[in-house]
Amino acid sequence: MWFGVILLCVSVFWNDRVRRLSPYTPGEQPKNGASVIKLNTNENPYPPSPSVIEAVTRAAASLRLYPDPSAMPLREALAEKFSLSVENVFCSNGSDEVLAFCFGAFFPEKPDGGRPVLFPDITYSFYPVYCGLWNTPFCEIPAGDDFSINFNDYNIPNGGVIFPNPNAPTSIAQTKEAVLKAAGFQMERRRVLVVDEAYVEFCGETVAPYIKEYENLLVVQTFSKAASLAGLRVGYALGNARLIQALERARDSFNSYPVDALACAAAAAAVRDWDYSRKMNRRIIASREKTISALRAMGWKVLPSSANFIFASPPAVQKGDVPDAAGVFQKLREKGFLTRYFPKERVKKFLRISIGSEEEMDLFLKCCMEPL
Amino acid sequence: MWFGVILLCVSVFWNDRVRRLSPYTPGEQPKNGASVIKLNTNENPYPPSPSVIEAVTRAAASLRLYPDPSAMPLREALAEKFSLSVENVFCSNGSDEVLAFCFGAFFPEKPDGGRPVLFPDITYSFYPVYCGLWNTPFCEIPAGDDFSINFNDYNIPNGGVIFPNPNAPTSIAQTKEAVLKAAGFQMERRRVLVVDEAYVEFCGETVAPYIKEYENLLVVQTFSKAASLAGLRVGYALGNARLIQALERARDSFNSYPVDALACAAAAAAVRDWDYSRKMNRRIIASREKTISALRAMGWKVLPSSANFIFASPPAVQKGDVPDAAGVFQKLREKGFLTRYFPKERVKKFLRISIGSEEEMDLFLKCCMEPL
Repeated sequence: MWFGVILLCVSVFWNDRVRRLSPYTPGEQPKNGASVIKLNTNENPYPPSPSVIEAVTRAAASLRLYPDPSAMPLREALAEKFSLSVENVFCSNGSDEVLAFCFGAFFPEKPDGGRPVLFPDITYSFYPVYCGLWNTPFCEIPAGDDFSINFNDYNIPNGGVIFPNPNAPTSIAQTKEAVLKAAGFQMERRRVLVVDEAYVEFCGETVAPYIKEYENLLVVQTFSKAASLAGLRVGYALGNARLIQALERARDSFNSYPVDALACAAAAAAVRDWDYSRKMNRRIIASREKTISALRAMGWKVLPSSANFIFASPPAVQKGDVPDAAGVFQKLREKGFLTRYFPKERVKKFLRISIGSEEEMDLFLKCCMEPL
Repeated sequence: MWFGVILLCVSVFWNDRVRRLSPYTPGEQPKNGASVIKLNTNENPYPPSPSVIEAVTRAAASLRLYPDPSAMPLREALAEKFSLSVENVFCSNGSDEVLAFCFGAFFPEKPDGGRPVLFPDITYSFYPVYCGLWNTPFCEIPAGDDFSINFNDYNIPNGGVIFPNPNAPTSIAQTKEAVLKAAGFQMERRRVLVVDEAYVEFCGETVAPYIKEYENLLVVQTFSKAASLAGLRVGYALGNARLIQALERARDSFNSYPVDALACAAAAAAVRDWDYSRKMNRRIIASREKTISALRAMGWKVLPSSANFIFASPPAVQKGDVPDAAGVFQKLREKGFLTRYFPKERVKKFLRISIGSEEEMDLFLKCCMEPL
């Protein structure tokens, strides 16, 4: 019977890889017109810099031509921002794609790939998916009861280490010193450390300046959160030129032009007007702190956040009235607030709530004051 | 000494996959301001439909939000154009990426993957690159002396078959009947046939309507050539829902949102104004025929073309004065005309020349009348 069900779900035309994959499920994107407040995918509530729109309009005049294969105009802008050389910058179609290339280029391959890549058990749920894609052995290192990461646990033989800083969905940041200590022991092992800094602009401490010191350190960032450009799909990696070359080899074996002409121009414009993003993100940080205080006053447990989202457990769960946050997630949904719930044992008591605009968070807090 | 050179070229941080890759080299994209006539990457000489620019401007207002993960508005437009259901349509970041997912989802994996995937020896040079990426066994089937493809040669045990129709860089098209015969014998073997129809709008015969009949047939097309949207990176596959699901599983294990919001809106607008593209492409076909006649009159050998480019061998090569087209390629380059030369034994006597605008082709023909 069980075999029958499996046979119904696959196709004779699928290869072994596609059969064994467990794809990632992105957060819900409601159809146009649906009247909801979207606090479920960590988008920025504010629009991108006005210069982005101008750049898009200008670039649209040349769409008949292929873009620069390596997105050079954007690499130049990023190199300038981070005081690096373009050889230290790799751009691709969203930081998820950059991470996919990292797993494909740096981490081992089964069957004879050797040591597993290490990442926390509570982290970005795309990491084990990439391992399925590339046939990468992996080992999840349990985070502490408070979801803290202790890098001593990672100082063991491995095929690479990756984690987000701040972590997702916990929102907890590691100090720069802790990350660099991990870069150090990975360097001694001659293994790569990838730090996924998608949320670093919301109070995290970037280790980007240290890629000159640690040739095994790769920092991945994105335009989706801090630059309000989730719709554009641009991410990048900063690292030693030899690490960047590896990513380029993987990219050029997959899709020679992953960053389209509009995305390249728009992201470069966003970099050159970074003061605008900084200003918008300060508003998000202020809203976050206000939201955390208000929720705690209502009996929610909220983890300390360095991201543009919070990880929070509702009062009913804290009081032991209900075993998990699924019901509150559903009730919020009915009241027009999309959040994210992960049905996984260690985090089932929490909701991940993106920080929206001031008005959206006021409405959210008002909703939370009613019984959920 | 030799080992020393190899060691200089790789890094201790590269995994086995990235070491073994032989990445694809895209055609040269000259920097802005370089005064050349670009006949080297098969771009469309005419701009996209004006409705594309309007769609981009409209979509730019929502860039802070993630796009629809499966590019549904574009799938809907394509499903309507081809009288199919959205379940038969897969969209991704350029047809190169669609092809990468095809190799990753349908063709076997070494070491125990079994039979090799088959493609012509003279064809799109990205195919063996994908095989390197996914560890896919492959076998190149020699095309005839006239570069024709005889599908009887492919009717052997295999792990899949893929070819472009029209073929690149030869520009030669297969008839619909020949392709469907191949789909038929692949169906009997329970193996997938991928037809890469990047150039089909320039006189090829699409087999897209036959995906309903052959559940193993996948048709890949692109917006880069016929729709003048190379800068936007949008490609798609049409096939049975189970084949599309396999591509979705691969995509969702790599990058959940490969088609950005601007690309999705712009490509959908291009589909809805396909009459415009048809009109532009008729001009290209007329220029192509004029160019072929003129070159033949000058002593060039030009293969029959069903694409937006021609494959042509210069008079000096035909007369035996020089062994290959490298010198003519270089001289054309010095005179401001970029074409493409492949330093491969069987095609080294030819140049691949994209069809530019009427004015560009007049200038090109004028240049060819001088000694090269």
